[in-house]
Amino acid sequence: MTRAGIVGFRGYSGAELLRLLDHHPSVKPVLLEHRQDSEERTQPIQSKQYPRVPCTPEAVKSEQLAVVFLATPADVSMELAPAMLHAGAKVVDLSGAFRFRDAATYSRWYHEDHTAPDLLAETVYGLPEFCRERIRGARLVSNPGCYPTAANLALQPLVASGVIDRTTGIVCDAKSGVSGAGRKPSLKTSFCEVTENLTAYSVLDHRHVPEILMVSGIEEAELSFTAQLLPIHRGILETIYFRSHGLSSAAELLEIYSRCYEKEPFVRLYAPGAFPDIRSVDHTNFCGIGVKFDAATGRAVVVTVIDNLVKGAAGQAIQNMNLMLGIPETEGLL
Amino acid sequence: MTRAGIVGFRGYSGAELLRLLDHHPSVKPVLLEHRQDSEERTQPIQSKQYPRVPCTPEAVKSEQLAVVFLATPADVSMELAPAMLHAGAKVVDLSGAFRFRDAATYSRWYHEDHTAPDLLAETVYGLPEFCRERIRGARLVSNPGCYPTAANLALQPLVASGVIDRTTGIVCDAKSGVSGAGRKPSLKTSFCEVTENLTAYSVLDHRHVPEILMVSGIEEAELSFTAQLLPIHRGILETIYFRSHGLSSAAELLEIYSRCYEKEPFVRLYAPGAFPDIRSVDHTNFCGIGVKFDAATGRAVVVTVIDNLVKGAAGQAIQNMNLMLGIPETEGLL
Amino acid sequence: MTRAGIVGFRGYSGAELLRLLDHHPSVKPVLLEHRQDSEERTQPIQSKQYPRVPCTPEAVKSEQLAVVFLATPADVSMELAPAMLHAGAKVVDLSGAFRFRDAATYSRWYHEDHTAPDLLAETVYGLPEFCRERIRGARLVSNPGCYPTAANLALQPLVASGVIDRTTGIVCDAKSGVSGAGRKPSLKTSFCEVTENLTAYSVLDHRHVPEILMVSGIEEAELSFTAQLLPIHRGILETIYFRSHGLSSAAELLEIYSRCYEKEPFVRLYAPGAFPDIRSVDHTNFCGIGVKFDAATGRAVVVTVIDNLVKGAAGQAIQNMNLMLGIPETEGLL
Amino acid sequence: MTRAGIVGFRGYSGAELLRLLDHHPSVKPVLLEHRQDSEERTQPIQSKQYPRVPCTPEAVKSEQLAVVFLATPADVSMELAPAMLHAGAKVVDLSGAFRFRDAATYSRWYHEDHTAPDLLAETVYGLPEFCRERIRGARLVSNPGCYPTAANLALQPLVASGVIDRTTGIVCDAKSGVSGAGRKPSLKTSFCEVTENLTAYSVLDHRHVPEILMVSGIEEAELSFTAQLLPIHRGILETIYFRSHGLSSAAELLEIYSRCYEKEPFVRLYAPGAFPDIRSVDHTNFCGIGVKFDAATGRAVVVTVIDNLVKGAAGQAIQNMNLMLGIPETEGLL
Repeated sequence: MTRAGIVGFRGYSGAELLRLLDHHPSVKPVLLEHRQDSEERTQPIQSKQYPRVPCTPEAVKSEQLAVVFLATPADVSMELAPAMLHAGAKVVDLSGAFRFRDAATYSRWYHEDHTAPDLLAETVYGLPEFCRERIRGARLVSNPGCYPTAANLALQPLVASGVIDRTTGIVCDAKSGVSGAGRKPSLKTSFCEVTENLTAYSVLDHRHVPEILMVSGIEEAELSFTAQLLPIHRGILETIYFRSHGLSSAAELLEIYSRCYEKEPFVRLYAPGAFPDIRSVDHTNFCGIGVKFDAATGRAVVVTVIDNLVKGAAGQAIQNMNLMLGIPETEGLL
Repeated sequence: MTRAGIVGFRGYSGAELLRLLDHHPSVKPVLLEHRQDSEERTQPIQSKQYPRVPCTPEAVKSEQLAVVFLATPADVSMELAPAMLHAGAKVVDLSGAFRFRDAATYSRWYHEDHTAPDLLAETVYGLPEFCRERIRGARLVSNPGCYPTAANLALQPLVASGVIDRTTGIVCDAKSGVSGAGRKPSLKTSFCEVTENLTAYSVLDHRHVPEILMVSGIEEAELSFTAQLLPIHRGILETIYFRSHGLSSAAELLEIYSRCYEKEPFVRLYAPGAFPDIRSVDHTNFCGIGVKFDAATGRAVVVTVIDNLVKGAAGQAIQNMNLMLGIPETEGLL
Repeated sequence: MTRAGIVGFRGYSGAELLRLLDHHPSVKPVLLEHRQDSEERTQPIQSKQYPRVPCTPEAVKSEQLAVVFLATPADVSMELAPAMLHAGAKVVDLSGAFRFRDAATYSRWYHEDHTAPDLLAETVYGLPEFCRERIRGARLVSNPGCYPTAANLALQPLVASGVIDRTTGIVCDAKSGVSGAGRKPSLKTSFCEVTENLTAYSVLDHRHVPEILMVSGIEEAELSFTAQLLPIHRGILETIYFRSHGLSSAAELLEIYSRCYEKEPFVRLYAPGAFPDIRSVDHTNFCGIGVKFDAATGRAVVVTVIDNLVKGAAGQAIQNMNLMLGIPETEGLL
Repeated sequence: MTRAGIVGFRGYSGAELLRLLDHHPSVKPVLLEHRQDSEERTQPIQSKQYPRVPCTPEAVKSEQLAVVFLATPADVSMELAPAMLHAGAKVVDLSGAFRFRDAATYSRWYHEDHTAPDLLAETVYGLPEFCRERIRGARLVSNPGCYPTAANLALQPLVASGVIDRTTGIVCDAKSGVSGAGRKPSLKTSFCEVTENLTAYSVLDHRHVPEILMVSGIEEAELSFTAQLLPIHRGILETIYFRSHGLSSAAELLEIYSRCYEKEPFVRLYAPGAFPDIRSVDHTNFCGIGVKFDAATGRAVVVTVIDNLVKGAAGQAIQNMNLMLGIPETEGLL
């Protein structure tokens, strides 16, 4: 049985990693105790106990961890990743710390210096649908952000196929459940502030934008991205608008996706005019994509959904781990 | 005391009319019983009883109703409006029946024939911010749709000022609470289908689109409009995207709104980069507008919010009634 | 591979059966089409297709169904159960039709005549924790109601042990998510009626009361049961109050449960003063039980939770099926 | 125009005081800035500005405040109340600091010493339905807790009339919206922890219990009280169970309430078997009471609802202020 360490297991992504690994047939979780600042849930007597060790290089070695998941803030990930790698584990980092090739992009969008820039060159961006081969060989994989995962799965095939009229711009209107903001209490994520409400935030300047640009090949000036906080626990829906040239029907739009994703286990397409809702991907690693196209005017709309804690975080992290360790890619995820 | 009849008082808009008129200092509600197909709420003993009469021309006369609100489906409104007018009452219709000048537009978007086309020529569209003087003199006012109210308050001043680059299109991504779908039970509005979910619907073909075009002056080919069902009771937020030419700052964008709305009692503006959320207009007749503009690329985002049952329905209907009856416009609404 | 038919697969319990059987290693679902009055969910292209046949005795035979689940209203269950049994399938009925030994009790609480009374004598009540052996040998199992499942798991061991002072009565204050009311649209289960609300219903006369009396051994005059509709999708929490004689500590109370449930795979106990919440059993077949006892006054409180669609319906139905078919009891449920 | 100071105006109760005073015809709010640790809501440009001064005795005098509301934690209230009184203002305290006649009871339930015990003797408990005359003459009124307000309005008339069989005990199963826990962020009140959940807390040892005992006349050993956190913003529903002797019908039970509350403006009764839901008192100062009684067994259930932020906090505080200042009791509250 392969053993995988989890740092940040009390947070929402970390807890989701634990939930998923619990069903994984060939990997067993080990909890790495880094900071104890967050409350644990009340548990039944005799509930399942996972091995729990300090988060140290020694523990990585003695526990023979093949991989360590960092479900931690970016600053903690920058501190821990070098040590975990040095101790011999592969690393999947769920923070934003290692998502860009250069430290300058990180600094611009995360407003702090990068403290482990030497690792950026070797880091592989963990979106398996587009980077599968490089993930297989990576020591350090940077798990994508939740919004960029949905956006890039919807946009990359269209940009690559050239059907988007990029001169008129692309709009991505994104809505996310509250768990995307993490488990740390804050006024913005308090029940009374969120329920029966919808709030726009990071309008045109969300830190996930550069990931969308990097993967999709869109230019910054072409993309208008806005995030909105939904009164739901988990799930993301993004509504993407563009104008097309040289596209004659919705079927043709769908065909671009079909060709790209026909062998992908986690991308599910809908008939033209039918759309996935957030419920349809709840607690799954699927990404759902639906399209609408008005041939007379060239207006196109793509709706894409994921569960932000699964395909947008822990599920994709396990998908990456499977690839890195030579385990079948869908194991523990279907 | 002026008396106002309400048809459809069991529905959400009708009940909201009743709630608001209850606080109106110079108008008293009279319930007009048209169909009894919908359940009433359990009431305390000795709860306030409103006069309740059959919905007939005779009752309109005997009750001396100065105005009748039709909070009814479009087909019922087309049937009742002529009779109520003939009985001497002014009419504010909250359905989609009388929102267009020609029956053909109605037929195209509502998929049925118009049965009272003779009234269309004299009907005044009840968006006071743009049609105030004509509303004052009207016999029949068509209360705007909820989505178009928010969209037009955000778009009309910008289109009129010419700052939108219309060649690149305008996106209006709209999200609404469930009460916008009415009180009649349906699977789509069942609690279990809506909670912890978000669903896109009427993508590019919502029947509210022609109202936005009519008031804002935008062409159909220029506008991409999508509606989404939020897991909340009431409230609408619309995120509007466009590209601008000839605009140098967000302050300039705000200035366009300030000039247009400086004397408007129900439009509230936010400093650039600050945005209203749905909570900020809950149970009020306000429309909130916030802006973001990136001068380097011309990308602009406008966020606009209303309570769909107040400024998007019953509140605006009372605002129209006030104008039609010579009552101060804000009476009963602040 | 054993095959199991599902009638009522579009309803919430039926859909949950399908979700669970999808992960069951030794049973495959077959959809039995009985009435087509309910809408199906939008599905992705190439989504998994289950065999779908008419709900007839012929289909039961030709599909070689070992068991048929009736996730149907009581009147439909009374019609279908005899036919399915006659066709050679075992039956697990999720309705209230077969929960009592005599037709008179059914008539009193369900306000209609029983149309298949001949089957009542052989029916086994499907609460495995107390009826396991008889379930193994049954042709027809009546799956318990959701409220009684939680109430009886909490009450039966205490009643049996004699620690409850029954002269002072027992209170069971029950709260349920909306899915307990089924998928059929109604005003009571509409989103706008339920959200941000709590409603008491069936106060002292809920039809689930006789099931609690039957299993726990409590007398009707001793029990006060009230149901309340929570603004959540799924889950039940019941708060049970009684006074004790001859009990000296919460630990002793817990000990009664421990002895009764030490080998039970689906009952989870909490340390005195710790309580399960609804979240802790979400999408699981577990029942959680927590206790508080004040020795000075004899006041005791027991909090019990289940997922009404799993342990309260589909999960328990599969647990029963496993027992009836000689499959390990927890298969497909952990 | 009378002027009223509010300390703690950023909290939920304080903000509700501001919302209500905004509509009060004869009192104007003044914000007293005590601590600035909590975030304020984003406001529209030119939103209404209230006078804002430091929370000092000097400000109380110079602003000529007739009354000061302390919407503050108990320790802050114990610090501020003497100073505000000394500066010449009357005080309505919304915390638990002054609810008991003796410091020992406070210490037992709030687990800290009382730092202003000298004020306890003169403090009047602010439940107008039972303490109206003493409130009129008070300098310092202690506004009741939210749970006790609902419980006492339901229980006091029944206890006084002697229809409760107290030897069998009384159960009060209470459920509250999240705003009852205040605006300070915490894990327990985070959206993701609360949504789609229900949690029991303070089982048998809630600090509101002594207030119920004090007003209703019940003994501690007779009452079993449990609180539960609902996934809603505001509102309380309490389900009260007892056994009766000498009561022959639900009508008789209702009659006890009718006699007690016939002149009360804020208590609303329901016909036997009809029950108020939380929605029915949303944003109002009403308390709704519904009853069910089974004459054959003596089992009785009372359901009582309030809005915890209005009748359970700010609304009742204004009701108290009106009485203290000789203003009509319902002013600003209907």
